[in-house]
Amino acid sequence: MSTPVNRQIILTARPEGNPKPTDFEIVERPVPVPGDGQVLVRNTLVSLDPFNRILMGNANSDQPPIEVGDTMFGFTVAVVEQSNHPDFAPGDHVSGYLGTTGWQDYALSDGSDIRTVDPEAAPLTAHLGLLGITGLTAWVGLTKIISLAPGKTLVVTAAAGGVGSAAAQIGKIRGLRVVGVAGGPDKTRHLLDDLGLDAAVDYKAPDFAEQLARAVPDGIDFLYENVGATQFPLMMEHMNLNSQVVVGGVMSQITSTNLTEGANDLPQVLRKIFYRNLSVHGFDVTQFYGDYQEFLDDLTPHVLAGKMHSATQVIEGLENIPTAFPQMFTGRGVGKLVAKIA
Amino acid sequence: MSTPVNRQIILTARPEGNPKPTDFEIVERPVPVPGDGQVLVRNTLVSLDPFNRILMGNANSDQPPIEVGDTMFGFTVAVVEQSNHPDFAPGDHVSGYLGTTGWQDYALSDGSDIRTVDPEAAPLTAHLGLLGITGLTAWVGLTKIISLAPGKTLVVTAAAGGVGSAAAQIGKIRGLRVVGVAGGPDKTRHLLDDLGLDAAVDYKAPDFAEQLARAVPDGIDFLYENVGATQFPLMMEHMNLNSQVVVGGVMSQITSTNLTEGANDLPQVLRKIFYRNLSVHGFDVTQFYGDYQEFLDDLTPHVLAGKMHSATQVIEGLENIPTAFPQMFTGRGVGKLVAKIA
Repeated sequence: MSTPVNRQIILTARPEGNPKPTDFEIVERPVPVPGDGQVLVRNTLVSLDPFNRILMGNANSDQPPIEVGDTMFGFTVAVVEQSNHPDFAPGDHVSGYLGTTGWQDYALSDGSDIRTVDPEAAPLTAHLGLLGITGLTAWVGLTKIISLAPGKTLVVTAAAGGVGSAAAQIGKIRGLRVVGVAGGPDKTRHLLDDLGLDAAVDYKAPDFAEQLARAVPDGIDFLYENVGATQFPLMMEHMNLNSQVVVGGVMSQITSTNLTEGANDLPQVLRKIFYRNLSVHGFDVTQFYGDYQEFLDDLTPHVLAGKMHSATQVIEGLENIPTAFPQMFTGRGVGKLVAKIA
Repeated sequence: MSTPVNRQIILTARPEGNPKPTDFEIVERPVPVPGDGQVLVRNTLVSLDPFNRILMGNANSDQPPIEVGDTMFGFTVAVVEQSNHPDFAPGDHVSGYLGTTGWQDYALSDGSDIRTVDPEAAPLTAHLGLLGITGLTAWVGLTKIISLAPGKTLVVTAAAGGVGSAAAQIGKIRGLRVVGVAGGPDKTRHLLDDLGLDAAVDYKAPDFAEQLARAVPDGIDFLYENVGATQFPLMMEHMNLNSQVVVGGVMSQITSTNLTEGANDLPQVLRKIFYRNLSVHGFDVTQFYGDYQEFLDDLTPHVLAGKMHSATQVIEGLENIPTAFPQMFTGRGVGKLVAKIA
């Protein structure tokens, strides 16, 4: 057996728009040695998220990017290899839930950015999806930022995506009529058949506006917005008086190279906000890490009971991340993208 | 003395953009006779507000307009002429605070749309401004929709207007740093010298962006937005984390004939909402009439103590309203427009 190395995917250039495989390079470095109080973990699953693209820079984001030459940040699931920390033992499964464990084989942790997970209690991939930051982002928006009421109508955009599908299913658990918006028949079928939503609307269809109108006969009471652009003004047409919008992401902007294209949609949106007494809320999920346990307590039983569906698209091998990641923004298939590391 | 008649200003055409004098006609009708439980009032002051333009139709508004041929709605101050209602006696001064008393010499009321005001307690014009719906709109936004905190920075757009100047002064009373945005040196001077704001920014100046940046060195914590268009994206650049926006009006849209002109500002605004955890709130002041007394109790002492300034531009005569009203949207002078009826 050869000496193990730590393969790291480093950023070699800030992408313009959609990243290219050549914006990354895989380097081999020695496996780090844990010091006092440190834990050495070996990543087994790497989560591929829009968040990663933001960290590459040129992403119409206010979040500071990593440096060119640095190892990519990323959420992971890992196994403890060595531990000098009382809370972790070799063989423990952990979730690298702050992204610092990154796109690499091995990572060092002081214990503050990993949490132990029980592989018997839920599939390990769930910690990158429904029970990870993705699910937390959906849950915080619908629980801490706005408050859902049963019987009302919730619309979720990018509903086949990670945050969107979690938000939509939380809406179903809470007893709302949930309408998902996604692009193309495969995704809308997934929303209806796998997630059990009440209606699905295809924003790529020529009759999108009519589909939406039919799907929300009583208007929209809650909108979980993940896209941040073109579909938003149309949603506004259906918002009920005193209804609420939570902005959980602005996915479409991340790879956009011309944000201000098209007619100016802002005046009419402000008008709707004013005349319909809307509230529109942004939030930063990192301010809610203190609610992580409450979130897990709330959703884990539903995940275990098989009442929440988590579509996962698994790619094999760290080395395939640079080619697989760009698919996220080009209408790839259904479900959360995860890389499995041997 | 000739038999009194009731002059009524009726809408003869829905204006396109800014209204023209020919969109109105003055008709003379018999003075109405109050029935059981009714009050006959004679208007002495008529308030001219953006709200009136909305009621004329073609105003990019969700509020239904009046019919062509109907008497114009409008807030007034009036004197009771005859009363068959136990709460009102001839000679009482009243505020026609729901707008139904309108642009006319006389009006009938069942008592539900008028309230008695004390002419000794505050100037009668105050009931159309600081102590009327205008002031209530400012107060509700800053008291019931968001909550101001002393020492923070409040920016008010259209700060020389009725709602804006009330909002700015409420901010000063609450101990905030208040920055007013208005068009032209006369208005910015008014904001500094008469209203005592901490800074004034001229949105018509070529260096508007630099002026704003200098005026908010610690960013913006609260934005009271009255304009609803072009200045909004620039404000977003300065909003602090977790800051709040209340939309008290969309004044610039009322007479606009091409709302979607220019670059698309919506994506970047949604991005700021997301990344800075902003909340943007619309509201309908009519849902807060139950708080009218609390509002009066809060602000009246400040008005009486001369601590709130109410600039008023008085035009003489009901017959001059059709020519004076359109000035509201064409950069007229400072202060609230009021018509005095002989």
